[in-house]
Amino acid sequence: MSEASDVLVERDGAFTTITMNRPRRRNALSREFLIQLTGAFREVAATDARGIVLAANGPVFSAGHDFADVAGASHADVRDLLRTCTELMRTIQSVPQVVVARVHALATAAGCQLAASCDLAVAAESAGFAAPGGKGGWFCHTPLVAIAHNVGRKRAAEMALTGEVVDAATAADWGLVNYAVPDDDLDKAVIGLLQRATQGSPRSKALGKQAMYAQFDRTEEDSYAYAIEVMAASSQTPEAQEGIGAFLEKRRPDWPA
Amino acid sequence: MSEASDVLVERDGAFTTITMNRPRRRNALSREFLIQLTGAFREVAATDARGIVLAANGPVFSAGHDFADVAGASHADVRDLLRTCTELMRTIQSVPQVVVARVHALATAAGCQLAASCDLAVAAESAGFAAPGGKGGWFCHTPLVAIAHNVGRKRAAEMALTGEVVDAATAADWGLVNYAVPDDDLDKAVIGLLQRATQGSPRSKALGKQAMYAQFDRTEEDSYAYAIEVMAASSQTPEAQEGIGAFLEKRRPDWPA
Amino acid sequence: MSEASDVLVERDGAFTTITMNRPRRRNALSREFLIQLTGAFREVAATDARGIVLAANGPVFSAGHDFADVAGASHADVRDLLRTCTELMRTIQSVPQVVVARVHALATAAGCQLAASCDLAVAAESAGFAAPGGKGGWFCHTPLVAIAHNVGRKRAAEMALTGEVVDAATAADWGLVNYAVPDDDLDKAVIGLLQRATQGSPRSKALGKQAMYAQFDRTEEDSYAYAIEVMAASSQTPEAQEGIGAFLEKRRPDWPA
Repeated sequence: MSEASDVLVERDGAFTTITMNRPRRRNALSREFLIQLTGAFREVAATDARGIVLAANGPVFSAGHDFADVAGASHADVRDLLRTCTELMRTIQSVPQVVVARVHALATAAGCQLAASCDLAVAAESAGFAAPGGKGGWFCHTPLVAIAHNVGRKRAAEMALTGEVVDAATAADWGLVNYAVPDDDLDKAVIGLLQRATQGSPRSKALGKQAMYAQFDRTEEDSYAYAIEVMAASSQTPEAQEGIGAFLEKRRPDWPA
Repeated sequence: MSEASDVLVERDGAFTTITMNRPRRRNALSREFLIQLTGAFREVAATDARGIVLAANGPVFSAGHDFADVAGASHADVRDLLRTCTELMRTIQSVPQVVVARVHALATAAGCQLAASCDLAVAAESAGFAAPGGKGGWFCHTPLVAIAHNVGRKRAAEMALTGEVVDAATAADWGLVNYAVPDDDLDKAVIGLLQRATQGSPRSKALGKQAMYAQFDRTEEDSYAYAIEVMAASSQTPEAQEGIGAFLEKRRPDWPA
Repeated sequence: MSEASDVLVERDGAFTTITMNRPRRRNALSREFLIQLTGAFREVAATDARGIVLAANGPVFSAGHDFADVAGASHADVRDLLRTCTELMRTIQSVPQVVVARVHALATAAGCQLAASCDLAVAAESAGFAAPGGKGGWFCHTPLVAIAHNVGRKRAAEMALTGEVVDAATAADWGLVNYAVPDDDLDKAVIGLLQRATQGSPRSKALGKQAMYAQFDRTEEDSYAYAIEVMAASSQTPEAQEGIGAFLEKRRPDWPA
């Protein structure tokens, strides 16, 4: 894609970076932009890329929905916007590749939700996270879904009710992101985490990611019932047998495509 | 109310403080006292107060149930006491105002549950939290509900099984409370948090709080299904449109009552 | 049992230590070994021991399943192995005694799951935790169940997707274990925690542990409905009345057997 595109998709070796490139609109998540981003994830999903970085250009990571899209919009239009937004969050979790958010600056409202919805996330120390609807007139109900599934209840309540910015170090301490690193080390930390998270068989990893989300909200008993079946079945795959064989024979594995 | 009351209700500006005032009984949660506290929350809920502080007088925040009420009590009476206690916890979460616990000293058993059941909580450094039934003969089953919905499983198990006091700094680290602050800074920290948590439209905040608890125990998929509907519908409210309009027009919002 | 046994069971005062003793096999969890461990927990469950330590001999705590058992094994055999493994995890949570994992070294895959499945866990600083299937060909689906029920989602995802070792201090910070202590202090810390966790009435503690796991995966509303009934009914037990009576009479309680 050209530099002028709103969504940049760049392959570099095993990894593809999807970059939000509407810096002058603070990467606001308009309906059209959400559809483009979802499309970009689906496009990369079909490639042999091993991992995906979600990045952003400009002074903010993403400011969430564009109020200009919502002012005066009908109930049906806003509902459609929120469903389109949720579809992006679900798509990120459903692609076979590991997705790491590269959060270099403020991530607010649906922008915060976007970072929280990636499998893993690394933030620059100067980044921040907020659900600002809490201090306005339109509460951040859907961003809170992604926040509350990552951090404890008192902390989710504080973010949602105050609407204030949580700094990157605090976000890492709470588990909203995996790491907060000095700004200059952001790319290195993102790529390092993605390299570690994409070791091993791509097919095993893709199944693992899918099953991970399937078990996250289940009770311990239901999770075991589910995980036993997936793990037993996957023991019969070529990639499992290759991994086990390579370990026993003390050789490097050669993963099936 | 007079100083002699068990429950003090004092309005100061936008906030109302509900104070447990049975210092000689260590603010023990007798059936009658629980009903008074629930009544106080319901009374304040109907006012235009923006936020509520739950505080306590005396050497402890609250020691939980009074063993004198339970010794020799029938199964039916204890069951009624526990249902009355749970009703207070639910009432705190159901009032439209943001509720911050001001924990200045020990909060044990149902007293710990009470602090954990407020939307937000700030503890003085010298405060502590415990589920002491774990080291006695009557396990803290109901306090554990509030504890386990705020902290991780190993930590909830440690509190419930040991019955020992967790200090305020550890409680903040685990997410049982939002902040632990030097004793002298407690009031400032409580009011500061409540001010941040009560910015914005009161009606939007009340809906936000209600929807937050409705989504907390849902799966991510169910939470989105729910949150999309609430957020789309609320986009049509005067407060949402005022917030959006004020932002776009770069003026201060004027929230509808 | 003799030193040559794979599973050592040693009673010392109120506590029994169950030690995995296959050091040359890195305490690999073969089907036969899992059955022996489950049998040992059931055997100790029937004694008057107050607490159980799960320990291990050798250079690792446990390396999880033995790949030699899985290489070429049928789907039915692997499924049976995983069901047998899950049965051990459930047994640990179902015995009436408090179980503390004493993790002195690496705990990987089902070995990590084993540590995470104990009620409480203490790790030596030099210990580590990993779900290494994430960097191989057979994803750690069932170990992830125990991990994800103890730590936040981003951290569980990092462990599962990277397969890398998390050090003991980080595991304690995330809540996967209760404490990380200097290697030389491990026994003291394990026994100290077990002493604190086994105070009080054994019968009350056994009911408390059972009810704790029953409520862990319930919604707050369901947890209260359940906990109220258990707590009201248990108020009528001799141990509850003894605890309450001793407190009110300022004497030491004498717990019914």
